[in-house]
Amino acid sequence: MTAAYATLETRFKRLGLVNEAVAMLNWDTAAMMPDGAAAARAEQLAELKVIAHEILADPRLADLMDDAGRDGLDDWQRANLAEMRRLWLHATAVPADLVAAYSRACSECEMAWRKARPANDFAAILPRLQRVLDLTREVAAAKAVKLGVSPYEALLDQFEPGGRIAEIDRLFDHLAERLPALIEGALAAQAARTPSLRPAGPFPVEAQRQAAQQLMARLGFEFDHGRLDQSLHPFCGGTPDDVRITTRYDEADFARALMGVLHETGHALYERGLPAVWRRQPVGEARGMSIHESQSLLIEMQVCRSREFLEFAAPILRECFGGAGPEWEAANLYRLGTRVVRSLIRVDADEVTYPAHVILRYRLERALIAAELELADLPDAWSEGMERLLAVTPPDDRDGCLQDIHWYDGAWGYFPTYTLGAMTAAQLFDAAKRAVPAIPGAIAHGDFAPLLAWLRANVHNLGSRYSARDILVRATGKPLDAAIFEGHLRARYLAA
Amino acid sequence: MTAAYATLETRFKRLGLVNEAVAMLNWDTAAMMPDGAAAARAEQLAELKVIAHEILADPRLADLMDDAGRDGLDDWQRANLAEMRRLWLHATAVPADLVAAYSRACSECEMAWRKARPANDFAAILPRLQRVLDLTREVAAAKAVKLGVSPYEALLDQFEPGGRIAEIDRLFDHLAERLPALIEGALAAQAARTPSLRPAGPFPVEAQRQAAQQLMARLGFEFDHGRLDQSLHPFCGGTPDDVRITTRYDEADFARALMGVLHETGHALYERGLPAVWRRQPVGEARGMSIHESQSLLIEMQVCRSREFLEFAAPILRECFGGAGPEWEAANLYRLGTRVVRSLIRVDADEVTYPAHVILRYRLERALIAAELELADLPDAWSEGMERLLAVTPPDDRDGCLQDIHWYDGAWGYFPTYTLGAMTAAQLFDAAKRAVPAIPGAIAHGDFAPLLAWLRANVHNLGSRYSARDILVRATGKPLDAAIFEGHLRARYLAA
Repeated sequence: MTAAYATLETRFKRLGLVNEAVAMLNWDTAAMMPDGAAAARAEQLAELKVIAHEILADPRLADLMDDAGRDGLDDWQRANLAEMRRLWLHATAVPADLVAAYSRACSECEMAWRKARPANDFAAILPRLQRVLDLTREVAAAKAVKLGVSPYEALLDQFEPGGRIAEIDRLFDHLAERLPALIEGALAAQAARTPSLRPAGPFPVEAQRQAAQQLMARLGFEFDHGRLDQSLHPFCGGTPDDVRITTRYDEADFARALMGVLHETGHALYERGLPAVWRRQPVGEARGMSIHESQSLLIEMQVCRSREFLEFAAPILRECFGGAGPEWEAANLYRLGTRVVRSLIRVDADEVTYPAHVILRYRLERALIAAELELADLPDAWSEGMERLLAVTPPDDRDGCLQDIHWYDGAWGYFPTYTLGAMTAAQLFDAAKRAVPAIPGAIAHGDFAPLLAWLRANVHNLGSRYSARDILVRATGKPLDAAIFEGHLRARYLAA
Repeated sequence: MTAAYATLETRFKRLGLVNEAVAMLNWDTAAMMPDGAAAARAEQLAELKVIAHEILADPRLADLMDDAGRDGLDDWQRANLAEMRRLWLHATAVPADLVAAYSRACSECEMAWRKARPANDFAAILPRLQRVLDLTREVAAAKAVKLGVSPYEALLDQFEPGGRIAEIDRLFDHLAERLPALIEGALAAQAARTPSLRPAGPFPVEAQRQAAQQLMARLGFEFDHGRLDQSLHPFCGGTPDDVRITTRYDEADFARALMGVLHETGHALYERGLPAVWRRQPVGEARGMSIHESQSLLIEMQVCRSREFLEFAAPILRECFGGAGPEWEAANLYRLGTRVVRSLIRVDADEVTYPAHVILRYRLERALIAAELELADLPDAWSEGMERLLAVTPPDDRDGCLQDIHWYDGAWGYFPTYTLGAMTAAQLFDAAKRAVPAIPGAIAHGDFAPLLAWLRANVHNLGSRYSARDILVRATGKPLDAAIFEGHLRARYLAA
């Protein structure tokens, strides 16, 4: 190991610790902070982010990375150095004045979006969104040169390192071709089955919290290293040693918060399982958003909406909510948890229709970044896409192209990771069950240890040692294969 | 205003923001953090403190301060520059290796103290405490040279900028001479009055929280800029825009948490009232611990244990706790809130006996720093002092010289600020009532606005613009005068 490499580790440890402080303050902002402190908090966060950026932008860093690569690094250290370089490229590819202008444009547009969406006023926000899009294109162009990829891939790389258009097109095209028939078939099969019954509320918040905490703990969430709290927008934040999940309770519907918590628990288990010896080094961090989302969806969709899980969970839910009767039976809870509905809103979509929402956004944002679509034409393009992929037409922009914060907040290149994550989840769970056939039976008894052990060894403990593709090849024998996800959907939704 | 001065403000703003992040993480550590995250949190805090220290230790800072002083500063800017210099002196007076050794010795000794105290084993901790004392002396000597004061005053200056031994001796000697008779007299007067009745619990935590929040809000605590939570050791933390109070509830005794919350509310009102235009500049910070403690004691002791306040609060407490009967009447609550007991433990002491605890510690720590007393002789010196000042003798060291964390944790020079604060509180409240005679009547009606307005104008809004002494002279017409505090004690405790 070179002295230069050791110096780099020291510098990135400082960066990691500053980022941990930022993560805790972000959690506090969402879960604890009184409203009047918002401006002061924004200043604290901005200053810490400037400090973090200065660590990456230090001109001596490039020399250190060049010197560090010359000799004597082991595989993990080499992977760490590669990740350092990737972070450095993203941090330094864009001129400081463009970074500042972009950050300002995004926050102004996001604030305007908070009013434009309920007002259903796309025209009002169009100029600000155009500014965000223009600057996003500039950022993408600057990063594309440094990374040696296309502008859209440069954006994608921020969330999904190494992600490639050709691969995503291949996977999404496979799915998009089959989705209309799949949705049609799932709805037909559903109509032919016993109708699902919805348990009647109200479900007190305290009972919901207890049910959530009980299931989280069973899944492997360590309350000695994390918390469950409330916030307006549920998320998984904090740090690997202190993972903080939030949710929002609806007393009329316990399933919404509960499934959200189980989803975030998947994210939390991944963070908690990242390699502790590489804590606060780039190689010790989560691999990217498709893998991260695969861990939440593996828990929520593959595990917690399975018949096996609901056999185990039904008595716990009956106990927590004082439930009785046919609507509380595992078979009914399974029917409820796997209901398919053609809907307008992505975040409310079920497992079968969700990819249609994502594929639409992916195609639209690629066309917008490539300047093949004008923003003024977005509402029409949105409606056409919804009609084609999902056979529904939004009555207005509020439930159309205004519904998601991503574009308005500058998160271009993020959307595909949701469905890449769903596919990855299906492929990993399939491989886990092949490798450890006892997994489904254990789940039915509330024993998640065999599954968690497999995930720890094959995904969590690897951090960013390998690419997302290589993680999948090592764990499942092949790169991402849309047919496995399709097969999962067919098995779960088209069966009689 | 010089360019050098503007640069200094930018640097100290960064320091202030980093310190705000530290303050929020400290709050989180005490109020929210799961145990398993302690080691990671310690690393986050340590790194942020190193970053803060680097800002102060930057060699260019001294030149900037020299250049900034040359011309064109207004009074606030000059005061700000003086505070910058004070912070810089403290940060750079001690060699880095001594700082590191001291920090390690303190945390090792503190950890050992956590076992030694319950085990009543002063001998076991003696070597570690000796190490802390030795290094404290070295730190004091190094700072004394730079500050041009005595070693003990250099320690005092960390908590009480500009504090002087001669002044404290004069004040404490005045009090110490009169305390034995005062305590005797207060106990005699108490014995001659109607005995106080203790309301019977249990007092549910939720009811206690509601009572506390209601009274906090009435006193002027803005819940839009702060919170009330629970922690093992109650404190007031956070930042001026987000003041976070914690308490610990005892279901058998509501008064303990409640009076603690009201005490912390006094600290909180001070922090919240600091000059917003000087936020994150040294001159915008609280003046020091005697003024800070004066604000908590003014609220807790001068206001909330007064007959007027209890007239107002008694119906609220009856309502919150469903209380009825003579024990819930204002006159009885007043008798309870002003009960005097000769006790062994400082933190449990009442207003009359508390100074005796403090004066003992002040005299002992001065003798220890001056090497006029050996640590091995501390337990005997403690007992003699308790006997002389309070006429009680500790049965063991657990309730003697092992009871307070301060010395074991390196907080030498802190103790006198408690009683300086109590004296300052009496003097400020006396002046406030002279300036605004309507204050006591308003308090009886739960209207704290006249008092708060006076405190804002005469103390809070001044930040560190003036010395503690000058704040007092401007607000009350003279420097600290022990006779005013003595007069308050006589009026409250010796009356029939």
